[in-house]
Amino acid sequence: MGAIAEHAASVSLIDHHVHGFWASAAPGDPDAFDIRFASALLEADTAGVRSIDDGFDTQAGFAVRAHCAPLLGLERHCSPVDYLRRRRELGETGVARTLLHAAGVAQWLVDTGFDIGLVSPDELAAAGGGVAHEVVRLEQIAEEAAAGAGGYADEFVEILQRRAAGAVATKSILAYRGGFGGDLSDPPPALVELAAQRWRDEGGRRVTDRILLRFGLHRALELGLPLQFHIGFGDRDADLATSNPLLLTDFLRGSGATPIMLLHCYPFEREAGYLAQAFGNVYLDGGLAIHHLGARSAAFITRLLEMAPFSKLLYSSDGCGPAEFHHLGAVLWRSGIARAVQSFVDADEWSQLDATRVIDMIAHDNAKRVYRL
Amino acid sequence: MGAIAEHAASVSLIDHHVHGFWASAAPGDPDAFDIRFASALLEADTAGVRSIDDGFDTQAGFAVRAHCAPLLGLERHCSPVDYLRRRRELGETGVARTLLHAAGVAQWLVDTGFDIGLVSPDELAAAGGGVAHEVVRLEQIAEEAAAGAGGYADEFVEILQRRAAGAVATKSILAYRGGFGGDLSDPPPALVELAAQRWRDEGGRRVTDRILLRFGLHRALELGLPLQFHIGFGDRDADLATSNPLLLTDFLRGSGATPIMLLHCYPFEREAGYLAQAFGNVYLDGGLAIHHLGARSAAFITRLLEMAPFSKLLYSSDGCGPAEFHHLGAVLWRSGIARAVQSFVDADEWSQLDATRVIDMIAHDNAKRVYRL
Amino acid sequence: MGAIAEHAASVSLIDHHVHGFWASAAPGDPDAFDIRFASALLEADTAGVRSIDDGFDTQAGFAVRAHCAPLLGLERHCSPVDYLRRRRELGETGVARTLLHAAGVAQWLVDTGFDIGLVSPDELAAAGGGVAHEVVRLEQIAEEAAAGAGGYADEFVEILQRRAAGAVATKSILAYRGGFGGDLSDPPPALVELAAQRWRDEGGRRVTDRILLRFGLHRALELGLPLQFHIGFGDRDADLATSNPLLLTDFLRGSGATPIMLLHCYPFEREAGYLAQAFGNVYLDGGLAIHHLGARSAAFITRLLEMAPFSKLLYSSDGCGPAEFHHLGAVLWRSGIARAVQSFVDADEWSQLDATRVIDMIAHDNAKRVYRL
Repeated sequence: MGAIAEHAASVSLIDHHVHGFWASAAPGDPDAFDIRFASALLEADTAGVRSIDDGFDTQAGFAVRAHCAPLLGLERHCSPVDYLRRRRELGETGVARTLLHAAGVAQWLVDTGFDIGLVSPDELAAAGGGVAHEVVRLEQIAEEAAAGAGGYADEFVEILQRRAAGAVATKSILAYRGGFGGDLSDPPPALVELAAQRWRDEGGRRVTDRILLRFGLHRALELGLPLQFHIGFGDRDADLATSNPLLLTDFLRGSGATPIMLLHCYPFEREAGYLAQAFGNVYLDGGLAIHHLGARSAAFITRLLEMAPFSKLLYSSDGCGPAEFHHLGAVLWRSGIARAVQSFVDADEWSQLDATRVIDMIAHDNAKRVYRL
Repeated sequence: MGAIAEHAASVSLIDHHVHGFWASAAPGDPDAFDIRFASALLEADTAGVRSIDDGFDTQAGFAVRAHCAPLLGLERHCSPVDYLRRRRELGETGVARTLLHAAGVAQWLVDTGFDIGLVSPDELAAAGGGVAHEVVRLEQIAEEAAAGAGGYADEFVEILQRRAAGAVATKSILAYRGGFGGDLSDPPPALVELAAQRWRDEGGRRVTDRILLRFGLHRALELGLPLQFHIGFGDRDADLATSNPLLLTDFLRGSGATPIMLLHCYPFEREAGYLAQAFGNVYLDGGLAIHHLGARSAAFITRLLEMAPFSKLLYSSDGCGPAEFHHLGAVLWRSGIARAVQSFVDADEWSQLDATRVIDMIAHDNAKRVYRL
Repeated sequence: MGAIAEHAASVSLIDHHVHGFWASAAPGDPDAFDIRFASALLEADTAGVRSIDDGFDTQAGFAVRAHCAPLLGLERHCSPVDYLRRRRELGETGVARTLLHAAGVAQWLVDTGFDIGLVSPDELAAAGGGVAHEVVRLEQIAEEAAAGAGGYADEFVEILQRRAAGAVATKSILAYRGGFGGDLSDPPPALVELAAQRWRDEGGRRVTDRILLRFGLHRALELGLPLQFHIGFGDRDADLATSNPLLLTDFLRGSGATPIMLLHCYPFEREAGYLAQAFGNVYLDGGLAIHHLGARSAAFITRLLEMAPFSKLLYSSDGCGPAEFHHLGAVLWRSGIARAVQSFVDADEWSQLDATRVIDMIAHDNAKRVYRL
């Protein structure tokens, strides 16, 4: 292994967007346990797998067998059946303890907006080593504000400030609530209260009203903590076409100095890289996509090194549920970034010193600076 | 040649979307014969070539000289003039007999919706070896239904069922009839009859009415046979911008269990791959684009191996007219898939066993299962 | 170095779209001099850099240190501080004289529509060797026509014809004036005069009125000189989403025989390549993006070799301001095209003769033919 690959293999990471791993040691039914895991290998398919093979015959499935199996005492590329049996023996916590430690992550920034069946940030940090910080989800705050007795806007701001006091960032899943198309300006207060009232009258739970969603974004901008956006690839509840980050351009023009973090980005990584160059406050990463791309993730990581200034790139796994994803995010990023920058050094386009310096920036320096960790 | 390349070079193929080759031995005018061939090298340009070089100075043209020339007794990379002379000597059938056999295709699924000047499915199978199956085009059925005396909807369903009885799939060229934008829901019966009446009154031939096109799609969904869609790259009668498969997302949400086959897909292969992961009934291939990409097809084939589960990828050539395309589709796919999976094995991301297994799935296993061949 | 790389390294170039380099030897304030340079490394960010490192920690910045530093007597990959010090010592003209000569450009086609602080075409040619030709910008003509006393349409046509008499092409920056969406047909004369009157009444300077912009495009079509369009990546005054060249499809259908030159194209190079195949009068290049992609430019140049016929590809740098860009455009194109075609020859997909022939076509033959140089 060359010096660059060694450096990338051991550099300490800040995972700036992640969720907990599955909390339950194992559900009663072994089949349900297996199906839950195989379904997670198909991020986009909310209907879940029809058979174990549906999930394992993917780049993510092959990557699990290549990278996680040896750490769990199995042969590299072992069969799905063997892998699942070993998983059941170890239980989620046993799997997590091994795989998370091997990820080499020093700080975890945990989106707590979805936490059903997942461990808490502190449990994540305890299992994986390092420390945890919270990222608060705007849509969750909206739902709490609507349940309050007072005026919606006041409730929202009060909850946001209270939650944000203990957090390092906010997060928007606008991509899952209608996408980025149309007007994203700050709505007039009167309209906000009307929209909130309508939503309360309807007994709504999931906030999809554009006025309320826009209101939340602008309060997050005022707050000034980094604001994370889910971009591109995700499950099919999002409409991929309307999660193209270029649709955020007007919003970004008015976003001032608040750091805007474009998460995941596949297959819009070139568009996101352009935005990170165009706007001094825009950043991006390749989380989620990296572990689902498996053997193809190195090419994706290389494409992230195009128009975005290197001070604008971060690392995340977006691991959520199986601890395999927290692990794969890290190991595939390590090997992918090494391969990418090594190719630039081999062509004498970059110096070796720059190569390791850029790895450090993406691995932790940029996150430390932007999140003031 | 390594084991993977050998496997890919000899695996039996099911070409799940193809047309006939040119029927005529040779038109009277040698120039017309040459121009017809050179024009076919520029799929997108419906105006045709201005000179032989216009067509040959392309990736498709270089691929013809690299791969087809030696099989016709010429040197690899021979001149276009030499290639055309030899073509004229052999005639279309002579060329086809040699090139089709060398493609190694066991089953041909032939779209008969466009057949002017092309051989029949049986003639294709006779020249190429293997057996032929029919794919019926919905827009052709619409045009037959409009010419009937009865109610349009009844006529359409009656013809569809009769044609489908001997077919393995249906095919839509909605990409060529206005694209995928807008409402694609099942239209009310009264509107269908009104639209059909208007079309008959206008003496229309090419069906472009959105109501009739939507009606046809939903009858095909009910039929349950795999439904093929032309996606992306094609000739310029299609509007590339509106043939982005993400515009089909809402239609796919309502498509039930009927297999939906996204054909060709360039340059939207990543979007198509996402859809194949998101929807259990969505499949894709890279036909047509592969032979037009020539030396760049291996990179394209590699990109197809990203988000789509491997059980959702198929092989097709979309060969139509010159038998060179039926041949190039196969040989470029064979070398491209071998190069792609070999790179994964070399990086120890995939096992060699998985590599050959995935080749088999794409070459024939998936098609056999989906089309019940 | 192999024969192909040698050929690419020495082939004479026609830079078919370029601007002048910075005219001033050096502004009084050294910091301003450095900041101006570092800001230019971030094309998209019109707000400019906050620190020198913001600009240098990019692919463009790394490429400057790799390729320009040695020509200015510094070590390859020297520090930004050293590079800036040397720049200040040499002054803009000193830097330009060295870097431009080393670019190996025989003819410069200079867009004079933006020239504040830039040298003239003749000064560019004098510093770089070779000869200069002018490209006239339609929006500049519109602004001159509005300032005239006569009818707008007559003034526009009169100025266009006068300017075009000494020029080789026209240029549109519609991408920076609202993008390509919507109706681009020739507007009725009465509307043109009304729009011009409204603009004059408002004391407008920058023309953004769609009617006047459309009018200009159609007069350029009638003129028949090649018409250049800025496409895709540029500074953030353009909206990247609406500079997708597919939005020009309807305009291209009505563009007749006038050559349409799609400039830069990133990240829409595949869409542009399709258009170059679909329309006999459409051409493309990868200028601007090449030097900003630095070590990633070879991959981009390879993608340009997909659907576009090889007779439709040209070379440009789009250098503007720092002479480093005029230089990097050339040297990165030379190494990138060599790497691309060498890979095709190594795979025996292309002959070596074809490889050097295609290099010549893109380097100068196509430009000579289209611009009648």
